[in-house]
Amino acid sequence: MYRTKSCGELRLSNVGENVTLAGWVQKVRKMGGMIFVDLRDRYGITQLVFNEENDKALCDKANTLGREYVIQAKGVVNKRYNNNSKIPTGDIEIIVSELNILNKSEVPPFTIEENTDGGDDIRMKYRYLDLRRSNVRANLELRHKFCLAVRHFLDSKGFLEIETPVLVGSTPEGARDFIVPSRMNPGQFYALPQSPQTLKQLLMVAGMDKYFQIVKCFRDEDLRADRQPEFTQIDCEMSFVEQNDIINTFEEMTKYLFKEVRHYDLGDEPFLRMSWHEAMRRFGSDKPDMRFGMEFVELMDVLKGTGDFAVFNNATYIGGICAKGCASYTRKQLDELTDFVKTPQIGAKGLVYARVMEDGTVKSSVDKFYTPEVLTKLGEAMNAEVGDLILILSGDDAMKTRKQLCELRLLMGDRLGLRDKNKFALLWVVDFPMFEWSDEEQRLMAMHHPFTAPKPSDIPLLDTDPANVLADAYDMVCNGVEVGGGSIRIHDAVLQAKIFEVLGFTPEKAQEQFGFLMNAFKYGAPPHGGLAYGLDRWVSLFAGLDSIRDCIAFPKNNSGRDVMLEAPSEVDIKQLDELHLKVEQSK
Amino acid sequence: MYRTKSCGELRLSNVGENVTLAGWVQKVRKMGGMIFVDLRDRYGITQLVFNEENDKALCDKANTLGREYVIQAKGVVNKRYNNNSKIPTGDIEIIVSELNILNKSEVPPFTIEENTDGGDDIRMKYRYLDLRRSNVRANLELRHKFCLAVRHFLDSKGFLEIETPVLVGSTPEGARDFIVPSRMNPGQFYALPQSPQTLKQLLMVAGMDKYFQIVKCFRDEDLRADRQPEFTQIDCEMSFVEQNDIINTFEEMTKYLFKEVRHYDLGDEPFLRMSWHEAMRRFGSDKPDMRFGMEFVELMDVLKGTGDFAVFNNATYIGGICAKGCASYTRKQLDELTDFVKTPQIGAKGLVYARVMEDGTVKSSVDKFYTPEVLTKLGEAMNAEVGDLILILSGDDAMKTRKQLCELRLLMGDRLGLRDKNKFALLWVVDFPMFEWSDEEQRLMAMHHPFTAPKPSDIPLLDTDPANVLADAYDMVCNGVEVGGGSIRIHDAVLQAKIFEVLGFTPEKAQEQFGFLMNAFKYGAPPHGGLAYGLDRWVSLFAGLDSIRDCIAFPKNNSGRDVMLEAPSEVDIKQLDELHLKVEQSK
Repeated sequence: MYRTKSCGELRLSNVGENVTLAGWVQKVRKMGGMIFVDLRDRYGITQLVFNEENDKALCDKANTLGREYVIQAKGVVNKRYNNNSKIPTGDIEIIVSELNILNKSEVPPFTIEENTDGGDDIRMKYRYLDLRRSNVRANLELRHKFCLAVRHFLDSKGFLEIETPVLVGSTPEGARDFIVPSRMNPGQFYALPQSPQTLKQLLMVAGMDKYFQIVKCFRDEDLRADRQPEFTQIDCEMSFVEQNDIINTFEEMTKYLFKEVRHYDLGDEPFLRMSWHEAMRRFGSDKPDMRFGMEFVELMDVLKGTGDFAVFNNATYIGGICAKGCASYTRKQLDELTDFVKTPQIGAKGLVYARVMEDGTVKSSVDKFYTPEVLTKLGEAMNAEVGDLILILSGDDAMKTRKQLCELRLLMGDRLGLRDKNKFALLWVVDFPMFEWSDEEQRLMAMHHPFTAPKPSDIPLLDTDPANVLADAYDMVCNGVEVGGGSIRIHDAVLQAKIFEVLGFTPEKAQEQFGFLMNAFKYGAPPHGGLAYGLDRWVSLFAGLDSIRDCIAFPKNNSGRDVMLEAPSEVDIKQLDELHLKVEQSK
Repeated sequence: MYRTKSCGELRLSNVGENVTLAGWVQKVRKMGGMIFVDLRDRYGITQLVFNEENDKALCDKANTLGREYVIQAKGVVNKRYNNNSKIPTGDIEIIVSELNILNKSEVPPFTIEENTDGGDDIRMKYRYLDLRRSNVRANLELRHKFCLAVRHFLDSKGFLEIETPVLVGSTPEGARDFIVPSRMNPGQFYALPQSPQTLKQLLMVAGMDKYFQIVKCFRDEDLRADRQPEFTQIDCEMSFVEQNDIINTFEEMTKYLFKEVRHYDLGDEPFLRMSWHEAMRRFGSDKPDMRFGMEFVELMDVLKGTGDFAVFNNATYIGGICAKGCASYTRKQLDELTDFVKTPQIGAKGLVYARVMEDGTVKSSVDKFYTPEVLTKLGEAMNAEVGDLILILSGDDAMKTRKQLCELRLLMGDRLGLRDKNKFALLWVVDFPMFEWSDEEQRLMAMHHPFTAPKPSDIPLLDTDPANVLADAYDMVCNGVEVGGGSIRIHDAVLQAKIFEVLGFTPEKAQEQFGFLMNAFKYGAPPHGGLAYGLDRWVSLFAGLDSIRDCIAFPKNNSGRDVMLEAPSEVDIKQLDELHLKVEQSK
């Protein structure tokens, strides 16, 4: 028995008890003939006291302790003279009578404190030290609680958690698969699932009725910030349901999770539902941040052809946002905004702004092209008041320009403090288009995935105007983050074949890649649908993190490397031989 | 809304209600002007009634229904005239007023019933139909409940479930790794974890204190029956613990699971603990089936050198078991036993038997070599009574002979009905040897894994007699199945390096493969230990299954293939090019 108590549980009521604690040395302080040691474990910090007068040898031993030494201390709980109100154990201390050093520690490469001096790279290399920091540990504790709450809720609704295989077949529609060579089947490969999509649909065909799984998924994509090659999904599917049944179930779950895990009341009202087209028009995004307004105002009527400004006159879209109280922005601040929208990631050509002055007139960066009347109309159209700043983007591709304006809106939201991490605004974005055009592939691609059902009323359009077919698809959005999404699925083999045809599959190719699913549909597939949540994102939102990395125990960096494990790495040639594989030198 | 009720919930108290049900057509029967349809979903079966007199058109429609059609039926709940006491809904039926066919079904390739006519291969190919059988579905429901109970228990004890990565580095000590080529790091490979062993130890170094995870693991082994290339582990680790702490915690969990999930009371007594050496001596196995006795009796004193039987006189081990009441076995039955022990999998050279006759004398197959006095002594040594059969194996390798005798004991246990699937006998096997000699590798190998701690008192033997070092390792055994196992781990970098040395690693090789762990030990690693349970095996035991396959939704066959998904398969040459890989034709 290494300990009788943890470092987080002793209180005044324990005074006088003999206890044994074990943990890590957080800090050693010497004062006169006394040594104070902050002993830390997962549960808290307790102060140990060594008194030279009582036991010189013991005090000498305590004097050898360094940061992060692992020790065991026995002693009696004592009321603290100067109590520390910042920690729950701050009323007591341990007068130590026996000290055992269980393991020494080299000096850690960074401080093990909430605000560490360690940079990202070194923290990841020594992640096992980084995780000792209480704020990082708290994220993992939150994740644990979150998953338990998800399981509790879904179990109470009759969902079964069913494990689907990790070694599946490669179906490279969508992102790139990670593949796994099979030694027993030379020349053949498994793939790691990008999601259990087809498997959960097979479980519906199998009559499982309500399925979920908290499950690892894999995508071999070039990693943007905040993407991981492996990530965790809360994957759900239900039979005999329509879109409303699914939305209602998971809205209830969401409210439950916010209440139980985040202690945040989302209220009794149903979440807002907004069509994809409306979201794009009003916010330039299929995941609008609804914590604040600053909605887009389309300005084609006001600014196109009403002055000599060729940029606007040639635009197919002109839109503006109104930043309350920002008319006082300096030239430098406005230049910063212009630089921002012109960065390659945003890609706008320029930014037009207008201020509503003290006297109510509107002064803009394009004053010379427009009459004061037009500018006044602009101010009215924008609902701008004295002291407001109007920011305007234009372009020849409405969707692209809206997306640029969206980025500007989010930036202004940040600047104005409208994106409070402790406030949550949720909505469902619905009625997504079925397809989107891919310039790269020169064909229509499934916007969600090829198993999404079109709206029944739009099915005839599949033959005549597929680009305008809407899908029975929905995303749940929180604070501008797509937390989850799903759809009603196709359960009819003929309709599924039709969709593959629209996507440019030959019947043979469709059969080869998805025959297992289309065959299953011939044996009594029920109507079904579902959704999947990104666990990492959701936990990050709850924890108020900027990156999903800090809610993952051992994340990978932007090159897909685990710098702690030094993986991936080269393997023994013997291993490759057994797999009948050879690495080709790149040219 | 496809349904207002499930097919499992209606009772007499619902009579008169209007309901809508949806599900699969299990059976259609026609009687006079009536059609009876058994409608099935996950929750049960409800009888639908169509009456020609009431609605001819509706009845004609019902007449078109085939097995496994998916339908929706509306109607009123009616008290059944001839009730069916076998099902919970057997008191009622639905008088149908509206019928909608949601999806047709081709005739399924086998019957969807508990006792199906489908063979293994076709059931696996159409696993989504196989899973519709209520007994197979019940296994998945059991698995779901089991995992929930595990999580509930461990959470209540302060364990955190922490996800560890699936894409890790290859450490081919032990079984073969599955490897995953990295596109972003050409020529380099991830490996899929055989277990999160080193990662959970790093979590202990990270101060997580109590960790668990229900997690997929991967081994690229040649598959014996009942092995899967991917399997699920309940993986646990604790800090500041000794062997007793771990055994106590998980004994409590085991009792909880048996009670909550299996409704079986294991009682208040602690489980039996038996040393590995004792288990081998008494049962010839490190996972003895304790549901029955039939213990080994060593017969060297009685039979070696006491007669002219050269086989025994040259043996280094002679052991027997006593099969109660089997003296009446016929010659044919005894020949069967002899054939059994001589099969290549068992590998014995022959079997000697002896019967205790009605008159108390002992008659054996080697009567001519021994005096009646010796045979009487044999009977006494075996504690054999009138009517008993003594079965004896011998050999020049005691361990091998014991393992052969173990197989014979298990067979006799089966024959005598002593291995009741509804009875459970648990024990801990402890004090395993640290190492075992590998003829193949010509070196000592870790019996558990290289991170297992030796018993502190045996550490000096590492230098002088490593083969006799015992480990702080333990297995939990239930009904002859190793359900789980673990050990106290090494937490000292120097001792860990020493173990790698005994295992034949150069310091460089040890550093290359396990440097991340040994480095971590330098920064204050706490004493720690843990264990892992095989989820598939445990659930199979609870379900009384002969194979783990039927508690896995989508298992693989003995060639590691998923015959439903047709995985693994060949991949596009483009995919291989991106990975800088080439498949070598086998010679």
